[in-house]
Amino acid sequence: MAARELEPQERVDWLRLCRSETVGPVTFYALLRRFGSAAAALDALPRLAVRDGARPAVPQTRRDAEAELAAIDRLGGRLVCWGEPLYPSALAAVEDAPPVLTVLGHDEMLGIPMVAVVGARNASANGRRLAQSLAAGLAEAGIVVISGMARGIDAAAHLGGLENGSVAVVAGGADIVYPEENRGLYDALVRDGAIVAEMPLGTEPQARHFPRRNRIISGMALGVVVVEAAAKSGSLITARYALEQGREVFAVPGSPLDPRSRGANDLLRNGATLTETVADILAQLGPLLQGRPPLRQPLPPQPRLPLPPAVPRPVLSAPAAPLGEDAALELIVEKLGPTPVAVDELVRQCQLSAASIATLLLELELAGRIERHPGNLVSLR
Amino acid sequence: MAARELEPQERVDWLRLCRSETVGPVTFYALLRRFGSAAAALDALPRLAVRDGARPAVPQTRRDAEAELAAIDRLGGRLVCWGEPLYPSALAAVEDAPPVLTVLGHDEMLGIPMVAVVGARNASANGRRLAQSLAAGLAEAGIVVISGMARGIDAAAHLGGLENGSVAVVAGGADIVYPEENRGLYDALVRDGAIVAEMPLGTEPQARHFPRRNRIISGMALGVVVVEAAAKSGSLITARYALEQGREVFAVPGSPLDPRSRGANDLLRNGATLTETVADILAQLGPLLQGRPPLRQPLPPQPRLPLPPAVPRPVLSAPAAPLGEDAALELIVEKLGPTPVAVDELVRQCQLSAASIATLLLELELAGRIERHPGNLVSLR
Repeated sequence: MAARELEPQERVDWLRLCRSETVGPVTFYALLRRFGSAAAALDALPRLAVRDGARPAVPQTRRDAEAELAAIDRLGGRLVCWGEPLYPSALAAVEDAPPVLTVLGHDEMLGIPMVAVVGARNASANGRRLAQSLAAGLAEAGIVVISGMARGIDAAAHLGGLENGSVAVVAGGADIVYPEENRGLYDALVRDGAIVAEMPLGTEPQARHFPRRNRIISGMALGVVVVEAAAKSGSLITARYALEQGREVFAVPGSPLDPRSRGANDLLRNGATLTETVADILAQLGPLLQGRPPLRQPLPPQPRLPLPPAVPRPVLSAPAAPLGEDAALELIVEKLGPTPVAVDELVRQCQLSAASIATLLLELELAGRIERHPGNLVSLR
Repeated sequence: MAARELEPQERVDWLRLCRSETVGPVTFYALLRRFGSAAAALDALPRLAVRDGARPAVPQTRRDAEAELAAIDRLGGRLVCWGEPLYPSALAAVEDAPPVLTVLGHDEMLGIPMVAVVGARNASANGRRLAQSLAAGLAEAGIVVISGMARGIDAAAHLGGLENGSVAVVAGGADIVYPEENRGLYDALVRDGAIVAEMPLGTEPQARHFPRRNRIISGMALGVVVVEAAAKSGSLITARYALEQGREVFAVPGSPLDPRSRGANDLLRNGATLTETVADILAQLGPLLQGRPPLRQPLPPQPRLPLPPAVPRPVLSAPAAPLGEDAALELIVEKLGPTPVAVDELVRQCQLSAASIATLLLELELAGRIERHPGNLVSLR
């Protein structure tokens, strides 16, 4: 079935489910798959978590969800849900893609091929110059430059790409300008580009939001260009996500005497595409850009993808395990520890059906007892 | 048979043959193979070239050869011939290895594993600093640093490596200091390292000598490290030779905004090993250094290698072609042009035996009518 927009009521339900406590993206899609709709999942939510003695997961109220939607509307923005025509198609294929995105500015830009340009906040003047010129070259080629609106390389990349519109993914709410020094850039992005946020409006960005923000940036992009990244920097995390997500990684080389080049040089050592000019990026992305729509014209409606994740998961409708559910829950908890283990491994070790394990894990997750990790791994909280 | 030193008489003959007009390294080895010894080849030389109407190749006189040897001796130097124990074993495996090398200083260094560090003459202060520190690290690991004694990166590399002795391959004669500003370095190299030259003493370096010098540098080395090389620079030629000769190529990355990084970054794009510290070099060379003798201890005598070249060549003692020799010569000349062609291709096109073609090509070469190129290619002059 072709991509379609959600009905207004459905949109409210998606938002409520997605904003409910202990419902992360992976759980969100699992619930949708199990119960068929967000509305049905919301109904089941309080019952699900109660069994294990944990306090029940409280669904977000309808009023709160409607208030959030109204606030987005007042800002001229839009809530884009997974699988809707405007939802970025590259991101939709990622296992833990955000179920909803708040978008301010030109939401139609999310349908244009994007390349991320990221790097150090304390970038050198040369680094900023390079980022800006690479971004300008990408914009000229009809590619939307995406970055994180941080100071340094991110800001330079947005500036360079703004000619073709540029997209900032922010760690907090879409209405929160951070850092404050980038207020002018923020306004320009809302006017000529777009601001994208996974968090609700009004959320002040916190340290734990940034890796998630980086993962959305790489997920939306065909490739990630790293300019000046020190060893162990956030840009390297973005590059690692990009590799996990099967994106191209580009790195701009620099002198070994400059510690800001350490990270990019490391990426080159590990196979990133050496990038001096935009031609290096376009040459590598060429095949991916074939048949893509031209500048500023969004993608045609895509056939509606199956729900994420990309990793195969057991079907939830299989017959239940012979073991009683409480005993089975205990068995699973016993096998789990703080170190993430593969769900497949659990299936083997517990000798329960994959379907039962999936159901039981969902309950444990909603009870806040386990945590999901990318790659279909789980750990005890 | 084990490597042995030539008898004094034999050494004079090698030098005479090698210094004779129109006898390049490839011809030198072909003559040695055909006639069995340098003495026999010298006897045959005037007859060989006369046939085609060209003026005969005049062998160098015994007196001139003896004078050259005496002059080397007065400088405390030594003539090292291909296959002798001191001849660098890596270089000996190269198709057009110099039949004789003039060595001033510590000739025993030629038996220690070497790595070349080369780069721009107009290097930046940072580039020179990097070259010196990489060279110092190599020296500390017991590796002899080899370079071309040019200003800039070469000079910095020699300085850095001098602790363990360093070897300069010069384009002119071993007694000619070029550039003059490097006289202090030259003296230090003679005292603590070595100067190596293919050309006779007293030869002023000319432009055409430099590519040949670069080829000897890469041929002597296990690997070539390129620091700051502009596009189309001599250092890139050295790197290309290194690849042809199966050597490792290392390149130090630099900012795309610095034109002096263009060449090294290009090498990285084409698969050179990204090099920030000496550890990057040692990690790659590790397997090649296994079982090598330690610091300052020359290699044990090697079994005498078969004469170069590495590419298979026809045996010269096969029966002659049915075609008359003059007609055959004309046939070959007709097939040749200024663009180098493979000898194998000539064999096919002329329908002569490989052995006849080899003999006829040797005569044409001695008559100065054809030119040899690496890879068993020939062209008309």
